[in-house]
Amino acid sequence: MAKALVGIIMGSDSDLPIMKEAAEVLEELGVEYELTIVSAHRTPQRMFEYANSAKDKGLKVIIAGAGGAAHLPGMVASITTLPVIGVPVKSRNSIDGWDSVLSILQMPGGIPVATVALDGAKNAGILAAEIIGAFDEKISKNLAKYKKGLEDKVLEKVKKIESKGWK
Amino acid sequence: MAKALVGIIMGSDSDLPIMKEAAEVLEELGVEYELTIVSAHRTPQRMFEYANSAKDKGLKVIIAGAGGAAHLPGMVASITTLPVIGVPVKSRNSIDGWDSVLSILQMPGGIPVATVALDGAKNAGILAAEIIGAFDEKISKNLAKYKKGLEDKVLEKVKKIESKGWK
Amino acid sequence: MAKALVGIIMGSDSDLPIMKEAAEVLEELGVEYELTIVSAHRTPQRMFEYANSAKDKGLKVIIAGAGGAAHLPGMVASITTLPVIGVPVKSRNSIDGWDSVLSILQMPGGIPVATVALDGAKNAGILAAEIIGAFDEKISKNLAKYKKGLEDKVLEKVKKIESKGWK
Amino acid sequence: MAKALVGIIMGSDSDLPIMKEAAEVLEELGVEYELTIVSAHRTPQRMFEYANSAKDKGLKVIIAGAGGAAHLPGMVASITTLPVIGVPVKSRNSIDGWDSVLSILQMPGGIPVATVALDGAKNAGILAAEIIGAFDEKISKNLAKYKKGLEDKVLEKVKKIESKGWK
Amino acid sequence: MAKALVGIIMGSDSDLPIMKEAAEVLEELGVEYELTIVSAHRTPQRMFEYANSAKDKGLKVIIAGAGGAAHLPGMVASITTLPVIGVPVKSRNSIDGWDSVLSILQMPGGIPVATVALDGAKNAGILAAEIIGAFDEKISKNLAKYKKGLEDKVLEKVKKIESKGWK
Amino acid sequence: MAKALVGIIMGSDSDLPIMKEAAEVLEELGVEYELTIVSAHRTPQRMFEYANSAKDKGLKVIIAGAGGAAHLPGMVASITTLPVIGVPVKSRNSIDGWDSVLSILQMPGGIPVATVALDGAKNAGILAAEIIGAFDEKISKNLAKYKKGLEDKVLEKVKKIESKGWK
Amino acid sequence: MAKALVGIIMGSDSDLPIMKEAAEVLEELGVEYELTIVSAHRTPQRMFEYANSAKDKGLKVIIAGAGGAAHLPGMVASITTLPVIGVPVKSRNSIDGWDSVLSILQMPGGIPVATVALDGAKNAGILAAEIIGAFDEKISKNLAKYKKGLEDKVLEKVKKIESKGWK
Amino acid sequence: MAKALVGIIMGSDSDLPIMKEAAEVLEELGVEYELTIVSAHRTPQRMFEYANSAKDKGLKVIIAGAGGAAHLPGMVASITTLPVIGVPVKSRNSIDGWDSVLSILQMPGGIPVATVALDGAKNAGILAAEIIGAFDEKISKNLAKYKKGLEDKVLEKVKKIESKGWK
Repeated sequence: MAKALVGIIMGSDSDLPIMKEAAEVLEELGVEYELTIVSAHRTPQRMFEYANSAKDKGLKVIIAGAGGAAHLPGMVASITTLPVIGVPVKSRNSIDGWDSVLSILQMPGGIPVATVALDGAKNAGILAAEIIGAFDEKISKNLAKYKKGLEDKVLEKVKKIESKGWK
Repeated sequence: MAKALVGIIMGSDSDLPIMKEAAEVLEELGVEYELTIVSAHRTPQRMFEYANSAKDKGLKVIIAGAGGAAHLPGMVASITTLPVIGVPVKSRNSIDGWDSVLSILQMPGGIPVATVALDGAKNAGILAAEIIGAFDEKISKNLAKYKKGLEDKVLEKVKKIESKGWK
Repeated sequence: MAKALVGIIMGSDSDLPIMKEAAEVLEELGVEYELTIVSAHRTPQRMFEYANSAKDKGLKVIIAGAGGAAHLPGMVASITTLPVIGVPVKSRNSIDGWDSVLSILQMPGGIPVATVALDGAKNAGILAAEIIGAFDEKISKNLAKYKKGLEDKVLEKVKKIESKGWK
Repeated sequence: MAKALVGIIMGSDSDLPIMKEAAEVLEELGVEYELTIVSAHRTPQRMFEYANSAKDKGLKVIIAGAGGAAHLPGMVASITTLPVIGVPVKSRNSIDGWDSVLSILQMPGGIPVATVALDGAKNAGILAAEIIGAFDEKISKNLAKYKKGLEDKVLEKVKKIESKGWK
Repeated sequence: MAKALVGIIMGSDSDLPIMKEAAEVLEELGVEYELTIVSAHRTPQRMFEYANSAKDKGLKVIIAGAGGAAHLPGMVASITTLPVIGVPVKSRNSIDGWDSVLSILQMPGGIPVATVALDGAKNAGILAAEIIGAFDEKISKNLAKYKKGLEDKVLEKVKKIESKGWK
Repeated sequence: MAKALVGIIMGSDSDLPIMKEAAEVLEELGVEYELTIVSAHRTPQRMFEYANSAKDKGLKVIIAGAGGAAHLPGMVASITTLPVIGVPVKSRNSIDGWDSVLSILQMPGGIPVATVALDGAKNAGILAAEIIGAFDEKISKNLAKYKKGLEDKVLEKVKKIESKGWK
Repeated sequence: MAKALVGIIMGSDSDLPIMKEAAEVLEELGVEYELTIVSAHRTPQRMFEYANSAKDKGLKVIIAGAGGAAHLPGMVASITTLPVIGVPVKSRNSIDGWDSVLSILQMPGGIPVATVALDGAKNAGILAAEIIGAFDEKISKNLAKYKKGLEDKVLEKVKKIESKGWK
Repeated sequence: MAKALVGIIMGSDSDLPIMKEAAEVLEELGVEYELTIVSAHRTPQRMFEYANSAKDKGLKVIIAGAGGAAHLPGMVASITTLPVIGVPVKSRNSIDGWDSVLSILQMPGGIPVATVALDGAKNAGILAAEIIGAFDEKISKNLAKYKKGLEDKVLEKVKKIESKGWK
């Protein structure tokens, strides 16, 4: 098995139904990944170690999902020099997702987190693939094919609606 | 000099104009404190050590101020069992303070942060004194006197407005 | 029976499904508490008496939960010198919880309320225990054990996910 | 001097630059009023007494202004059966006025507060006059004249713009 | 039958499930009312006539409920000198109620609307009764009794919870 | 002079510094217009008459600007069958513009208002010209030229930045 | 069959349950339309071509619906000189509709989009008809009849409620 | 001169005071970049060409800044398979930045934009360097040094505050 290039982490297994979309799309795009649970608040020591060792074990990108006062993506970004993609999860205790979004997005100067849409784990996976693909022609081609697929699906629906009408 | 009971920390010295109000009111209330800079994102290692050693060096309460995606209060609270008071600071890059408030307030179950109003460092100091005062009659009396002072100031203004009119 | 150290109050028994989480976690942490209903708007006289007598009957912390235009925590804090923890409850008539949060959090200078997350009654209980625990080594140890338990639960899930995969 | 029919109160003299507009428009409309400072948080006892005695001393309406976690209008309304008009003041520590608005507006069932616009003290005065005017033909006529005056001022501007152009 | 003192109007019969609470509490408080449908946007002419004739037919207060871009309360207030109580209704097309609240509350200087909480039709009814009650001792007594009833219900629950425990 | 095709109205002359941008761009695009003051709340009768007669006097589009609880665009739209463009103005008493935006945008089914950006009077003018231009080739060509001008200005800046650098 | 005057487009067939209301009301009002799928993000080339050719094939108005970061209406408006009506759709991934509303409404100076209420496709259809109707007396009459129908439905409900009571 | 790896684009030169921070930090980190103006709304054709050719001319990452209804980052992302970093700019016509943030962040599934904080152009530059650095050890070391510099600056301030006190 090839070495993981993308590390997917989340604060709790309750985030898995959202975060697994990142894994699924990475599989579809042919990018190796690993997935585990790392909690900033419940396992701070583990978080430090994960972030500290990520680069050395070969990861190129980290995807971190969390909800509410979501500190995991930003804290991991403060420790590693790898690009960190943050997925704001609309968790049970979230105020309509605003807390998740703002506590991931609004990082201070010096420590960026690449934030995607609320519950946007699929886009986090695609973004990770785009980062890999900028340096790997095979993944880049997979992305082009994926994009073409999105377009084709729309065009099929166009054909259907234009031949059969919308009603 | 007596040992500090309250530790005041902030992510940057740009937070000092707000956070010093906590120090000033603690002095007024006769509570020993220490004040320093600890950044969750720029000095994560220092933050861990500060939080880990806080209880052993005699602190009873930690006041942590931060702005934007404010992770300092919550991360400190994840490491220590001391009560942590969070002060959302409306920093330069904040979206009207909402990011600061939500990323401190909306902590997940298990890791509370005692959040005060936006830029409410003075109230953080008073709250710390109330916590100490619940177990120290002298501080409790200082608080009662402080409260009486607030009332007296209002009553003086009442007297003035009722004798001279409001115009 | 030992004397209650924490008083849990709420504006209505409709808040009980949320607020009982404070009581449950206090029991788990070995902290004596009392729980009753006190409405700022429907029983203002009772609220005054409760807040006025809280310190004398031995309470060290008050936890107050309320929703909508939530005045109970702030009004109790205006009368007592004890630390007051406010729980914003997302009640039936609340606008997504914003009213509950803001009318508890944004107290004026001089009268702090230690605000926790929306519906965060469990965290209110833990915070109260942390306040007691800062002066009571037994409770402090219970808190350390509780925190360790949170970590262990995450680590178990890590083990499970890393052995069986996430699918 | 005639007895005051409207009581104007505010939490702090810092609210006076806003709240005096209520007094001024009541004078213009010929309604007797009194104005003083009553703080829910700094003088809770005084607030109780003010609200309790308001009806007996002849007041028909109370106008209460406050900012941030604004509890004065709602607490006064919980004690008296008089109509209470709440003015959300955008005070120094307010989050763009949202806290002031929501903590006055979102009262629970049973305890209404007649809320006007942010910093809308002038409208609070007019509303108080409308309440008096519903039972007092003289005030009602003053209101009709006041409304006519508003219309006339617009019509004058129309005339000016239509004769001289807008440039 | 006595003449109606309060007019309850709403933009659509889809608002009735909310707005009928105003009627019910007015019946409980012994205040005569009428209830009908008046749409600012669908029947502007009817709205003008309703507002214009309200005072002459003996109404003392108008309660107007509407949702979304809610113009009914403010437009009625622009035509009559009677006090107008606005009920923001969280209608089907409303963005979490914010549009209803803001388009009723934020009236310009000169034209107040007494706004109550989102979906707060019951409080609108009580507020109307308070306005009447300020000039009618019988209604005032009914209000005092109503308030006492609210308190008694809380005290009963207190008794129950203190004797049987909360569990 | 040609007959006005676009009517620009606003609630107050304090809106003129914003609303004049609609007039200016209409002049630039060669569309005849008229501009006056019509207040929904201060001159409701005038508003009715203006809206009622607009079509008969040859107007094709009405641009209405207002701030706060902004009822002018929606009320005009309820009376005429002409397209009404609403400009939310961030007036002095507005809560960051949200009230202006929501009370114009969120019209109920049946009564549309074509809403443009906050303070977007210039775009209101262009939109009115686009509506005229859809049926008038001369105006359509002016619009195409205007669009070309926007593009040219960007391309000039591109040239400058690419030749001289951005510093 | 007459040529389409209105083009209805949407980013995805998942928007059809909302967007079809535009088609239905246009049929009711006697305005010819076409309806198809055009995605700004999935079929950018198709979007360009659609917008570029719209005027030449006889369209007078384009209605574009999209949700989340909704770029379709604004991008189409940047390419054509026809009036573009934007319908913010509260799609599955939207944050309560705010993203859809703001990314359609807040267009920069020069490129207007006529925005209607969240999910307001019916109003988009009526607005398109009003635009056509300003230059076509038959459609104008249909609109007047439609408006009269709205009024009649309210008046019927008035009659029913006034004869049978509201209970 | 080495070939640019990062393309920085913005909708208008009015965004330059913010966006230049991306260029400056890339220079500091030793990453080659180019900077120009590309407007989604004013030069849609140019935007298409820029995005289409970006990969072929050797860019690895695109940084796109825009304000208000900000479509540039998302539209570029829809055309290229390169990672696109979006900078929400709080432009003059923005509603406190919310429109800029949401119209960049909330992209639909399939088309990610790596969003950074409001006005966070510096972080966009660092993130671009992190992406390059994941595949280029020299840049990675520059990043590690940069991070160390951030830490050192905090530690210096700590030393100063601990030796001289905070007053």
